[in-house]
Amino acid sequence: MTIRLGLVGLGKIARDQHLPAIAATEGIELTAIASRNAGLPDLPYFHDVDALLASDTAVDAISLCTPPQGRFEQALAALAAGKHLMLEKPPGMSVAEVEALGRMALDKGLTIFATWHSREAAGVEPARAFLADKTIRSVRIDWKEDVRHWHPGQQWIWEPGGLGVFDPGINALSIVTRILPEPMHLVASTLDFPENRHAPIAASLAFRTMSGAPVEAEFDWRQTGPQTWDIRVATDGGELVLSHGGSRLAIDGVQRMAEPDREYRNLYRRFVELVGTGGSDFDLSPLIHVADAFLLGQRRVTDAFHD
Amino acid sequence: MTIRLGLVGLGKIARDQHLPAIAATEGIELTAIASRNAGLPDLPYFHDVDALLASDTAVDAISLCTPPQGRFEQALAALAAGKHLMLEKPPGMSVAEVEALGRMALDKGLTIFATWHSREAAGVEPARAFLADKTIRSVRIDWKEDVRHWHPGQQWIWEPGGLGVFDPGINALSIVTRILPEPMHLVASTLDFPENRHAPIAASLAFRTMSGAPVEAEFDWRQTGPQTWDIRVATDGGELVLSHGGSRLAIDGVQRMAEPDREYRNLYRRFVELVGTGGSDFDLSPLIHVADAFLLGQRRVTDAFHD
Repeated sequence: MTIRLGLVGLGKIARDQHLPAIAATEGIELTAIASRNAGLPDLPYFHDVDALLASDTAVDAISLCTPPQGRFEQALAALAAGKHLMLEKPPGMSVAEVEALGRMALDKGLTIFATWHSREAAGVEPARAFLADKTIRSVRIDWKEDVRHWHPGQQWIWEPGGLGVFDPGINALSIVTRILPEPMHLVASTLDFPENRHAPIAASLAFRTMSGAPVEAEFDWRQTGPQTWDIRVATDGGELVLSHGGSRLAIDGVQRMAEPDREYRNLYRRFVELVGTGGSDFDLSPLIHVADAFLLGQRRVTDAFHD
Repeated sequence: MTIRLGLVGLGKIARDQHLPAIAATEGIELTAIASRNAGLPDLPYFHDVDALLASDTAVDAISLCTPPQGRFEQALAALAAGKHLMLEKPPGMSVAEVEALGRMALDKGLTIFATWHSREAAGVEPARAFLADKTIRSVRIDWKEDVRHWHPGQQWIWEPGGLGVFDPGINALSIVTRILPEPMHLVASTLDFPENRHAPIAASLAFRTMSGAPVEAEFDWRQTGPQTWDIRVATDGGELVLSHGGSRLAIDGVQRMAEPDREYRNLYRRFVELVGTGGSDFDLSPLIHVADAFLLGQRRVTDAFHD
């Protein structure tokens, strides 16, 4: 049975990623759009999720790709109406609100999928398999990109809940928490805030794994020229390098794979599976690490940022 | 069988609260002390928890009342050695590290007790019972005290992980999360940082319950004169006031109880029960709300603070 999907939010990520991924995925079809600004030709259109849910247009599931601020009320409305739920990353603007949604979905027997698209990059599962029986010696994460290129004019990323440089950085954390064979926790955090912004533009983080290996991360939103999304893991069985955001994997310098981006297609295929089996996928550890980074963060003030 | 307890940390909270509470509790006895600075007459003394665990002095359980920074390694050592574990509040300096400890204790079949002493105040359980079938209309928390009186010369409270004004504020959050009949989540946070400190001296928080009732909290460490630790809950069945940190309860202005402080005795009695039944008590929601408050916090800089 095909899942009838209502897509809420029709911004950049929805147009760039969600629409083509939904169109390419069997078992799910786009049935309605809710967005404050725009609809699509030949599709029922609503101003917001409440209007969609109150309408005659039947949907089985809701996919939220609005900014994280305000997403809680939309998610709550979807679950209250008995709809399965898929959440863009980050799944909300606070840990507590997302935990509450997870409990509610569980209580109501609905699927909830807190997506982390970077975990679907081609190199991630092979990296996880390689590391499963290794001893981790150290991890180094460099996640450096140009915010002006990737978030042109998006003000919500600088507001509370928008996460600043952790909006991309949480992608790196979602990969690392998947591939490492043991949990890690933060021990030190330095955050650079532009003097005119309430969110950090750069962050320097030091974690430790349970067995004590250092995990260092450098996030920076001021990178022009080549962009860097690399994770290096030194182990007793060689050095693993995940680059290009996880789509390329090399071990001891030998390229193991380099595949085109299918992250969002994988997400929607997984959502169809989860709804079919009555399961959920709801790992908040990347968001928890970000909250910890703010909790423990030493704050430095840096140059003003202007779009 | 009496639990042989090793107490780690012999600072203000250990001397003021833990030692008398342990002495007054059946089923547990203080067997050893680990502390960098001081021991007690007639008790085996060790410089740190590792030395205690490596010694001939047998203990069944460890109670940690060191500052949260560095407590993870102590907790890990205790669990690795097969000891039951009791943690002062806050249970650690990050959410992720405490979650990792919880999973480890569960895996090893050991008791872990993340204590929230304010939940043991006399009015808390009666308040919880009163609110269980009520509709919450609004909640107001005022938690205002004089840091110079309560934390004389303690520098760790101002360091990352020391939480600043959330060190007392988390007590209020531990009560509210216990007595309200549904979860809440943060929607806005303002934090006041002294210009010479890395932790807030005041905080203004706005939460919502799942059904949308506002929960407002004002934390301030600059209160001289009378101290304020009050929680007011407006419901469809009357107004509840928990004051004096939870030890006094009034409903619609009628005093229901006012009992002396037995918080730490209750904690140790509960720990004895948990060890006896093989259970754990491990609710991180107060710490998660604090992490969320930093994650979403709008930061203001205020006057320098000097002890």
